[in-house]
Amino acid sequence: MTGIDDLPIRDELRGKSPYGAPQLDVPVRLNTNENPYPLPEALVARIAERVTEAARHLNRYPDRDAVELRTRLADYLSRTAGHFVDHRQVWAANGSNEVLQQLLQAFGGPGRTALGFEPSYSMHALLARGTGTGWLSGPRDDDFTIDTEAAVRTIAEHRPDVVFVCSPNNPTGTAVSEETVLALHDAAQAARPEHGALVVVDEAYGEFSHHPSLLPLIEGRPRLVLSRTMSKAFGAAGLRLGYLAAAPAVVDAVQLVRLPYHLSAVTQATALAALEHTDTLLGYVAQLKTERDRLVSELRALGCEVTDSDANFVQFGRFDGAAGSHAVWKALLEHGVLVRDNGVPGRLRVTAGTPEENDAFLDAVRAVLKELKEKSD
Amino acid sequence: MTGIDDLPIRDELRGKSPYGAPQLDVPVRLNTNENPYPLPEALVARIAERVTEAARHLNRYPDRDAVELRTRLADYLSRTAGHFVDHRQVWAANGSNEVLQQLLQAFGGPGRTALGFEPSYSMHALLARGTGTGWLSGPRDDDFTIDTEAAVRTIAEHRPDVVFVCSPNNPTGTAVSEETVLALHDAAQAARPEHGALVVVDEAYGEFSHHPSLLPLIEGRPRLVLSRTMSKAFGAAGLRLGYLAAAPAVVDAVQLVRLPYHLSAVTQATALAALEHTDTLLGYVAQLKTERDRLVSELRALGCEVTDSDANFVQFGRFDGAAGSHAVWKALLEHGVLVRDNGVPGRLRVTAGTPEENDAFLDAVRAVLKELKEKSD
Repeated sequence: MTGIDDLPIRDELRGKSPYGAPQLDVPVRLNTNENPYPLPEALVARIAERVTEAARHLNRYPDRDAVELRTRLADYLSRTAGHFVDHRQVWAANGSNEVLQQLLQAFGGPGRTALGFEPSYSMHALLARGTGTGWLSGPRDDDFTIDTEAAVRTIAEHRPDVVFVCSPNNPTGTAVSEETVLALHDAAQAARPEHGALVVVDEAYGEFSHHPSLLPLIEGRPRLVLSRTMSKAFGAAGLRLGYLAAAPAVVDAVQLVRLPYHLSAVTQATALAALEHTDTLLGYVAQLKTERDRLVSELRALGCEVTDSDANFVQFGRFDGAAGSHAVWKALLEHGVLVRDNGVPGRLRVTAGTPEENDAFLDAVRAVLKELKEKSD
Repeated sequence: MTGIDDLPIRDELRGKSPYGAPQLDVPVRLNTNENPYPLPEALVARIAERVTEAARHLNRYPDRDAVELRTRLADYLSRTAGHFVDHRQVWAANGSNEVLQQLLQAFGGPGRTALGFEPSYSMHALLARGTGTGWLSGPRDDDFTIDTEAAVRTIAEHRPDVVFVCSPNNPTGTAVSEETVLALHDAAQAARPEHGALVVVDEAYGEFSHHPSLLPLIEGRPRLVLSRTMSKAFGAAGLRLGYLAAAPAVVDAVQLVRLPYHLSAVTQATALAALEHTDTLLGYVAQLKTERDRLVSELRALGCEVTDSDANFVQFGRFDGAAGSHAVWKALLEHGVLVRDNGVPGRLRVTAGTPEENDAFLDAVRAVLKELKEKSD
């Protein structure tokens, strides 16, 4: 039987495994930062209506430029993110992963480098690898914030073509301040005086933050890009709809590398339906923020070390290194609760679920901590 | 106002335009090889049902490996393409463009080359550029067939990592024989004795051919890949569903580069509904084949030089070079018929539409040829 290694695959892929969290069938799944609230039935019905209409023209290619969808996404940002944008400043693709991949194809690629501050969303590094972009790992402090001065020095030294700033940061939940983003942006431009560098603020979890969106920073900064997703705040991880807001020239640039007709007519129709129900969905976001804050305080009350969170998940620990966090991950699984081991030694990440799911998680943590204490006694 | 050239985009993208046919609003659109038959209402209703079900779980990520969809695609191929395959041999993505992009990410990329026989589907070269893969343009004969001996020599000389064989070929309609594909495959392996080379048979228009599918050739040839799409034969250009069949190891390899959760739950649901209606949709294919054959013979009767076609489109000419074909393209547009100028000098491509659309096209050709004759008299 022919295996991968018999094939002429690229050398850097040899021995690698596909990216993705284990998909296990357990009662309480709090491992992939999904929104626990199913879409309301009124929205499900509206999706069926819009998809039915789209299906009647499915023999034709979709709107290649997704103008209606980009217009509605721009309206949403203008209304909720503190800054007016129109459709020429917005681009959409199959998940923010595809948006970020397109940015790297246009602004990264062979002979270029991208920098992120780790631990962060691990797809940034994987997308860099997949597009032939060199990857630079920048530093975070012990509390997982970005030390602005150290970060500026790193940028000045390595002169990256693309800088990723994930805020709120996955998997730590850490928000990055406007001042830090501006300092990183200015340092990145200063390091590359000819055409500048692209700074991508990944706000996949932006709606869950205690802080306002960083969207207004794109004004007057044509190399600053904000990326977003409907996966979390819109409760639509299954839809795969990511988008960006930036200067129109950035949107023009990604159109040079996007696959033609990349966004299907059913995806566009479903996303448009969801955007009609924004207020209901943002109501769920408000509930999840309350639950997230409860997780932080209850975990702290249990004696855990918990990273401040502006996302719909919480990083907690501190367990005895990588082995310790993996043992707790496994013990929680035995109690029917799946959380995520993102490879940050001594820490685990739990997604804010429904109040009942969070109660089940907290009960499981209590039980596991007791077991650990009994073992060590 | 900041333009693209002020941004740090890759040098090879400077001055480029996005790929895509002009989207013009004309009565008869025969320019993008779309299937002219809307999906039957029973299928539209089934799509609504399946999407409604998917929408109820849209807050969760889709099946990352799309196992049910790949199983049904494998069933379809096993039943219609002369060779049994199972889901481990099938992979699906957002359009065959994404399938081919993933193949190039895994098997092409920086420092590697891909070869195609041009004129052919121009996305092959663009996908190579987008993935950093060097592009080699191989020869075709004056009648647009591939001269096997010349092609084998080209492969031996340039030793490509990936070879594209488009059959039926777009934009010429030309089928490639099994013997030629085998000769190219063997030459490609001989030229790269260590791990071999990937040979991708792009059968996007396979269902319209007078010849059987080349699928059986994958047996015992783990470096031979067949790619397909639901855009044409399934009347679902708006769905963006492409797939491949190959050895399981090839499927394992593309999973190393695919974006996680690349295929949305609504796309999977819609494709599954369409696959339930295969027989009805293949009935439309049979009608289109008859119409395609009629276009070939009627265009020949009008004195045009027409390339033999195994696709749902017909290449016709011969006009006076690039200027001549562009003038005829424009004149047909003035008669309300949009065809495609693919940049093959002296030739145009027309998609087989409904009988009424094809009549309108043939009337327009008659009128334009008369106008041309009057001008030259």
